Amino acid sequence: MLTTSDTSASATTMPAGPAGEAATVAVRPPRPADFTPDDVLTAHRGGKLSVSLRAPLANRRDLSMLYTPGVAGVSSLIATDPAAARDYTWASRVVAVISDGTAVLGLGDIGPKASLPVMEGKSALMKAFAGLDSVPIVLSTKDPDEIVAAVTAIAPSFGAINLEDISAPRCFEVERRLVDALDIPVMHDDQHGTAVVVLAALMNAASVIQRVMVDLRVVIAGAGAAGVACAKILLAAGIHDLVLVDSKGVLSVGRDGMHPVKAEMAALSNPRGITGTLADAMADADVFIGVSGGLVDPALVAAMGPQPIVFALANPTPEIDPAAALRYGAAVVATGRSDFANQINNVLAFPGIFLGALDCGAKKITEGMKVAAAGAICAAVPDRAVAERIVPDPFTPGLARMVADAVIAAARAEGVAE
Amino acid sequence: MLTTSDTSASATTMPAGPAGEAATVAVRPPRPADFTPDDVLTAHRGGKLSVSLRAPLANRRDLSMLYTPGVAGVSSLIATDPAAARDYTWASRVVAVISDGTAVLGLGDIGPKASLPVMEGKSALMKAFAGLDSVPIVLSTKDPDEIVAAVTAIAPSFGAINLEDISAPRCFEVERRLVDALDIPVMHDDQHGTAVVVLAALMNAASVIQRVMVDLRVVIAGAGAAGVACAKILLAAGIHDLVLVDSKGVLSVGRDGMHPVKAEMAALSNPRGITGTLADAMADADVFIGVSGGLVDPALVAAMGPQPIVFALANPTPEIDPAAALRYGAAVVATGRSDFANQINNVLAFPGIFLGALDCGAKKITEGMKVAAAGAICAAVPDRAVAERIVPDPFTPGLARMVADAVIAAARAEGVAE
Repeated sequence: MLTTSDTSASATTMPAGPAGEAATVAVRPPRPADFTPDDVLTAHRGGKLSVSLRAPLANRRDLSMLYTPGVAGVSSLIATDPAAARDYTWASRVVAVISDGTAVLGLGDIGPKASLPVMEGKSALMKAFAGLDSVPIVLSTKDPDEIVAAVTAIAPSFGAINLEDISAPRCFEVERRLVDALDIPVMHDDQHGTAVVVLAALMNAASVIQRVMVDLRVVIAGAGAAGVACAKILLAAGIHDLVLVDSKGVLSVGRDGMHPVKAEMAALSNPRGITGTLADAMADADVFIGVSGGLVDPALVAAMGPQPIVFALANPTPEIDPAAALRYGAAVVATGRSDFANQINNVLAFPGIFLGALDCGAKKITEGMKVAAAGAICAAVPDRAVAERIVPDPFTPGLARMVADAVIAAARAEGVAE
Repeated sequence: MLTTSDTSASATTMPAGPAGEAATVAVRPPRPADFTPDDVLTAHRGGKLSVSLRAPLANRRDLSMLYTPGVAGVSSLIATDPAAARDYTWASRVVAVISDGTAVLGLGDIGPKASLPVMEGKSALMKAFAGLDSVPIVLSTKDPDEIVAAVTAIAPSFGAINLEDISAPRCFEVERRLVDALDIPVMHDDQHGTAVVVLAALMNAASVIQRVMVDLRVVIAGAGAAGVACAKILLAAGIHDLVLVDSKGVLSVGRDGMHPVKAEMAALSNPRGITGTLADAMADADVFIGVSGGLVDPALVAAMGPQPIVFALANPTPEIDPAAALRYGAAVVATGRSDFANQINNVLAFPGIFLGALDCGAKKITEGMKVAAAGAICAAVPDRAVAERIVPDPFTPGLARMVADAVIAAARAEGVAE
């Protein structure tokens, strides 16, 4: 979850620009508020979801068919033919949206109850954008062993698991163990939903600057959930010159004291063996992807290669102010905010990814399925090579279906569909 | 879950009746089937539930209010004031229907996937009869420690827990530990839903035979989930002469090798210190309650006290054939089947019990709340003192609300409501 509160205009004092002038750039231009805090509370009152019946239950015959004695025939059928569960229960089309409430929006570790409005919101988006039923589940434990045990225990109730807002590095272990343990798709959306949309946006951004995407030199500032997933999908999509940077500097083989996930990423990336700081990594790079939340001196954009691409995705304050990035020469700028062009928003990806995975009975969500999803999102942009239009509108009609169809085709090609 | 498949007429050869004639009594008279197995499968296709949105999500403003950035305000509010979760999430009005699939209908241990149609059905009844949202959760484990851990982990997502179809004696431990661990209502419906309806039916049956209920001598055949719960609620309602009988005979203090739950029940019941068999217990008893599934010689009814009451609740074959019970002198007969008068059906109880418990924010469901629910069900019968009408029609308008109001009053009186 990269996007968070951006309802209040904020201002950040920026370092001196190229002409030496002190610049105070409004991160968001003042504008009339679309809604008040009270509007928001009213919209959330009583929760955002309800459960409905798909069949009538109005008389004794209905009661006898939907419950006892009729239901015994359905249960007996599934007991003898487990595959029948796909046709005669809702599990095969229901996504569990599961969080321990430790990395919620920009709010951090606020606990399960306070994270529930976000998970309900995620379920609401699943329904609104893909017609998918889903159930928000928030957990009273942060222990990876207990999370894995609980999710494994309840898994027969669901067709897929969307992990959400679980802090790094626990999120990597939790996801990996659940993927291994379960025969249904498991995806931590903060990692992979973000990564899919970043890849889609980068596909279009490359065409804006008339470059072949796989040749681009990429720097990712941030090696948490989103940074690691972005790195993995970009590598899977063919990019080879990619460097990750965390708060201690560039991830490189031999750097001491790295978490195993970072050590793995160091080995997979950084082919030129760069060491040092973010500035060292950004020199001559083509793409900056900020998923760290830490402010970056926009003057570093000037030291990047020609026509640099800047994705500053932290919320509410992008790592590099978009206006400053443009002033320092950026050719394409994207953020996580809805009040600038090119919002990198997970909602472009996850509804269609889960729709596709459930439709084809995929046992897992592979890197190839994610790359295919990114391709469909990229292709849904109506105007080619426009710097301010590198991602589609989330309300593009049929977007989730297009993403789903691409995911299904990839799942079949990889042999993970039913 | 007492009710199960009763779609096929079956016949049981009965022992000789009082006049010495050999009797073969049809347990169910032949009649045109209300529905075919295909009708049932069609009704269950795709599952019986779906999730709907309670607020529109049609444009960017809706998206920004229901999800980021708007939702951050709701999450922040709950983080600082946890009580706000009751107003701004759905958890406070959602029941989890949870099973490990070990004691499903008359089918036994059929596993989580095969039990899911029943749990979906239960959720459908919650909605149809009480307007309650609920989510079916089936578990991949039968281990009590793991069940307790998993349910505890997911509990912040829900307002109440309906345990369902968990086999005895594990169900006692699982329920007790969850009641202790959680601050939301937890109820194993196979125990308490059945017990509440039995008590309601017995209240009316006593008036049919013009007896004071607390004076009745009661024999319960079966000391599993339903039998133990029936015994407890009848004791709570003031009955004192009550004997439990299992497959090895009467539960009495000093009997060797009893499970701790049975030993506890032996100590709480059987004030006359009866030992021996079911026949010993039934001699001069006023009420027989069968929750065992084992066939009982209907001639034993003749040895009961005057105007005996027979509740033979096993499905599909009642412990005592209703027609034979009447022939041997029973004044009132009830079964678990929909094709005889006086069906003891949990659906009379659980929707209203959970509705009431959620409405008043009860932290638990007490024995007093259950007794109050039984009183409301008893009072909902329109005709007083009619042997064939000791329970109301499940489709009685407003029944769940009446039960809920009684539950709320009891919760307030006991100080367990908010």
